[in-house]
Amino acid sequence: MPNWFNADGRVAEVVVDDRGLQYGDGLFETIAIRNGAPRLWDKHMARLRRGCDVIGIEMPPEPELLEGVLRAVEVSNVTAAYAVAKIILTAGTGLRGYGRVTATSPSVLFGAFVANPVAVKLYREGAEVALCETRLASSSALAGIKTLNRLEQVLARSEIIGSKAFEGLTMDADNNIICGTMSNVFFVQKNVLSTAALERCGVAGVMRGHVIESLSEQGIETQLRHTTSTELSEVDEIFLCNSQFGLIPVRHCGEQQWPVGELTRTAMAALAENGIRECRL
Amino acid sequence: MPNWFNADGRVAEVVVDDRGLQYGDGLFETIAIRNGAPRLWDKHMARLRRGCDVIGIEMPPEPELLEGVLRAVEVSNVTAAYAVAKIILTAGTGLRGYGRVTATSPSVLFGAFVANPVAVKLYREGAEVALCETRLASSSALAGIKTLNRLEQVLARSEIIGSKAFEGLTMDADNNIICGTMSNVFFVQKNVLSTAALERCGVAGVMRGHVIESLSEQGIETQLRHTTSTELSEVDEIFLCNSQFGLIPVRHCGEQQWPVGELTRTAMAALAENGIRECRL
Repeated sequence: MPNWFNADGRVAEVVVDDRGLQYGDGLFETIAIRNGAPRLWDKHMARLRRGCDVIGIEMPPEPELLEGVLRAVEVSNVTAAYAVAKIILTAGTGLRGYGRVTATSPSVLFGAFVANPVAVKLYREGAEVALCETRLASSSALAGIKTLNRLEQVLARSEIIGSKAFEGLTMDADNNIICGTMSNVFFVQKNVLSTAALERCGVAGVMRGHVIESLSEQGIETQLRHTTSTELSEVDEIFLCNSQFGLIPVRHCGEQQWPVGELTRTAMAALAENGIRECRL
Repeated sequence: MPNWFNADGRVAEVVVDDRGLQYGDGLFETIAIRNGAPRLWDKHMARLRRGCDVIGIEMPPEPELLEGVLRAVEVSNVTAAYAVAKIILTAGTGLRGYGRVTATSPSVLFGAFVANPVAVKLYREGAEVALCETRLASSSALAGIKTLNRLEQVLARSEIIGSKAFEGLTMDADNNIICGTMSNVFFVQKNVLSTAALERCGVAGVMRGHVIESLSEQGIETQLRHTTSTELSEVDEIFLCNSQFGLIPVRHCGEQQWPVGELTRTAMAALAENGIRECRL
């Protein structure tokens, strides 16, 4: 069954010359579809636009992207009530060689897939995570944005295949915990909530922004600062978030163990009220 | 005119699901074809094999890769006397999501293109280079190998489009000069030859290895150490190398200027004797 489409709903093809394949010269967004509509659409578009600014791609009009996503969901055989859509935006085809001017004819590809809900038990009791050996390179010009250069995440995620871990946490060379392989990480220590600033590496997830905003509306601010792996033993609560599953508490990491704490529950409730139904316990 | 082929010489296609496009989950080699044969083939294969080990792809048999390259050159309309071939090796298609086991069915694509020789004047008088603003991220798990994650090089190379510079030099966050965007850089200071070690970032070019070996055979050793941008003023000679052009002296970088020095000439002569004809002046 085809899963990738062009803006007009035809089955998508990509040529080998596409700079997305040649150099990872592009961006993507993975968007939760709930009840027929993309969730956190504005935040996905804001991040895509930031990415376009950084790597020099002319952002297609948002209504066209929205139409493409909805059409992909429609023409693929997935349930629009609960699905996942992906937009890939590459710098298109062009001359061989790294250099280019701003890409004004990007390749735009839309994918729609079956979404696999995470077990309710994990929301209630928390998930196990593992520290990955693969480190994230620091001081990246691409920090924060979601490019097609994702080999670090591939290597890190591949480490936990076959293990009990729901997610792997990735560090930079200084043992700062930056991200999960497919999520962002929040820490609570002495009632202070924090997450990595991501100014040097990592991906700034849209759900991370949604968590920060949703809690800020309740008067709870998130500090942007690093937590190292050795500081894990001093942390009172940890949780993960991403655009698909919303927020999931962390229960275990190696020998460390945490309860589902009060601030984590507050964050879940705030998200549940702010459109992330999975977090309603 | 088609430029990309499968191993059997049919025009190559790639599906959107290919992990090479989705995540840059793959490797490539750009190989000079001279008089019908790939140049420095063994070194290209050694780097590809190193890359396969690092990112977990089963390396196809070298004879098949060689056959694919030669067939691509043959069936495309390029001159086998002087051309450039490219092998792209991706982790293939597979499940969505970053994690995977070792890729045993990689996608293998062969490209053949017209080679554009660099003007003889640059070999004789040296080229202008510029320092790029784009920094390379450090402590990369992918340091040294040639993956499809090349957005940093895209951004850096794009900086010099429209300028007089033949090449852009990229630094890490500590102002260490690591590589050119498509070349490696050697420095001579007080008769000591050095190049960046590339243990934290950068691509270890096959011509870099060939330069080190060719000079070592003449009793000239290359130190692997960093040179910062501020040390440029103390440097006596600089040269660039890559698999296509061989070795080109650097004449200018900003306000700095260098002659084509003695060790640079020795290196060119050593390469010229070691199969890199462009370096015969």
